Amino acid sequence: MTKQNRRAFIGTSLLALGGASSFAATPSNAPLIHHVFFWLKNPSSNADLEKLLEGIRSLKKIETVQEFRIGKPAKTPKRPVIDDSYAVSLYTTFNDVAGHDVYQEHAIHKKFIETYGSLWSKVQVYDSVDI
Amino acid sequence: MTKQNRRAFIGTSLLALGGASSFAATPSNAPLIHHVFFWLKNPSSNADLEKLLEGIRSLKKIETVQEFRIGKPAKTPKRPVIDDSYAVSLYTTFNDVAGHDVYQEHAIHKKFIETYGSLWSKVQVYDSVDI
Repeated sequence: MTKQNRRAFIGTSLLALGGASSFAATPSNAPLIHHVFFWLKNPSSNADLEKLLEGIRSLKKIETVQEFRIGKPAKTPKRPVIDDSYAVSLYTTFNDVAGHDVYQEHAIHKKFIETYGSLWSKVQVYDSVDI
Repeated sequence: MTKQNRRAFIGTSLLALGGASSFAATPSNAPLIHHVFFWLKNPSSNADLEKLLEGIRSLKKIETVQEFRIGKPAKTPKRPVIDDSYAVSLYTTFNDVAGHDVYQEHAIHKKFIETYGSLWSKVQVYDSVDI
């Protein structure tokens, strides 16, 4: 295979991969899930909820964040094992622990805690990595 | 617009959508996150862990499951808000509550609980929907 042919082959292969990825059901290249649940001090205050959401949205700008999804409890049937008492959840993924650490130490994250930290009564975090 | 033109237009639009999705950073068409954390009765037993993993893997076959990721606690720096005491986590997404309910009531899921339920001491579930 000549150098030029090899280059063309690699190009075609990448193209094929790109095409395949658009059909993949579960693209998952960020193996570290950082899932955070927030409980509000005033769970009935819509203003506090909106303020917290505003703060959470600011975190999306941090460069190492991959996926970024803000959630609220889903209306799945109640079961004793389900905790649906939180107000807001934040699901983010990172490529690795280093990426997560950049996020934790980032000025935007520190400002988020400083500005909005008085709104929540409890935060629960689960960090997991794909196995 | 003639019928034929309309068909051609729809075809092109679908093509455009397909193309766009392959470039999307965070394709997210399954808004319901079902995140489950398992604690083992015998946390030090690798055999029990492997057995539980075998059981969890069987759940992937349920048709309404979209994303499916099995995790273990990540080695992020310890903080009081982090719970890293679980053995295994299962992150799945569904298109809607109906899809989640099909999963819960599915024979494969019932068999999973029946066969592997004796392995865990606690299960904690968080269901959230994108906002």
